Amino acid sequence: MDLLKERIRKDGQVLPGNILKVGSFLNHQIDIELLDKIGEEFARLYKGVPVTKILTVEASGIAIACSVAHILRVPVVFAKKNKTGNVNDDCYVTSVYSFTNAKNYNVIVSRNYLKPEDKILLVDDFLANGSALSGLLDLANQAGAKVQGACIVIEKGFQEGGRLLRDKGLRIESLAIIDSMSVENGITFRN
Amino acid sequence: MDLLKERIRKDGQVLPGNILKVGSFLNHQIDIELLDKIGEEFARLYKGVPVTKILTVEASGIAIACSVAHILRVPVVFAKKNKTGNVNDDCYVTSVYSFTNAKNYNVIVSRNYLKPEDKILLVDDFLANGSALSGLLDLANQAGAKVQGACIVIEKGFQEGGRLLRDKGLRIESLAIIDSMSVENGITFRN
Repeated sequence: MDLLKERIRKDGQVLPGNILKVGSFLNHQIDIELLDKIGEEFARLYKGVPVTKILTVEASGIAIACSVAHILRVPVVFAKKNKTGNVNDDCYVTSVYSFTNAKNYNVIVSRNYLKPEDKILLVDDFLANGSALSGLLDLANQAGAKVQGACIVIEKGFQEGGRLLRDKGLRIESLAIIDSMSVENGITFRN
Repeated sequence: MDLLKERIRKDGQVLPGNILKVGSFLNHQIDIELLDKIGEEFARLYKGVPVTKILTVEASGIAIACSVAHILRVPVVFAKKNKTGNVNDDCYVTSVYSFTNAKNYNVIVSRNYLKPEDKILLVDDFLANGSALSGLLDLANQAGAKVQGACIVIEKGFQEGGRLLRDKGLRIESLAIIDSMSVENGITFRN
């Protein structure tokens, strides 16, 4: 998606440690024009694919999930990061490793909102090592739901998450795949 | 907003301790049709009021903020709950008390995304004691921005947040105000 790549080049900040900051337009401040275009693009990519629900994880995935749901006219479910450790039987639970915080945390979703008859699109802002997306996939699998694919805004193609999950058969549509990035040389996108 | 009140009566769950669960349509699973209507209603209520930015707090406020922003065509900024305690000088910080978790936590927003020239609508899903909304107001005030009003989906009118903040001069538009609720007698809305 050229509009997105241009925006990343213009307003993204590459920091040491393979960090890409896009808080000015994607996951702290959100450019609503760009968000609409992102939703339209995912809807176009999954045109003709039956979808009953969008599944994402708080917090950065929610706006993107809503932009897709706005066009597909299906509900959004967002998995919650569980702070209390106190999980009851009404929830599916999975563990996600956060590289940013260097720890595992539980992500939960109520059993009421994912059903075996659901056809699901997974949505997130970033895909890098694939831990968050694997977690969403696990939650959907626990529910016995069918996962139709994943919608990722920015994939760090130089990390292994995308390859590992595609090898497992997951369809992943990433609007911008970064092949390399550094403070010195900037960002190279995959064509 | 009658559609919302009907939905709360139909699908909301009143639990002991003044808890109202609306996770089936508002803040865990999100009904996208209802979300659109909520955004339209807030846009109607603030018609003619200049707005340059929507400010909310993760996670439940984000979808609602985006539904308003979608119509007003302005950016959303969502304040982040700060888990690390490690706040740098680039952020405005405020403290919010969570009754659910019975503790204070810091909420932060980058100084880059709130400016003195901004005209802001505050958005959240619930207003009860007013701690989260006061925090958002404080962040906007720290930036020297003008706050045009607040958009609240469900106000617990029997708690003091709404009165206290209106007494301070904040315009608050709540789509459903609950005057009383109990497991035995259900929900009474303010007319």
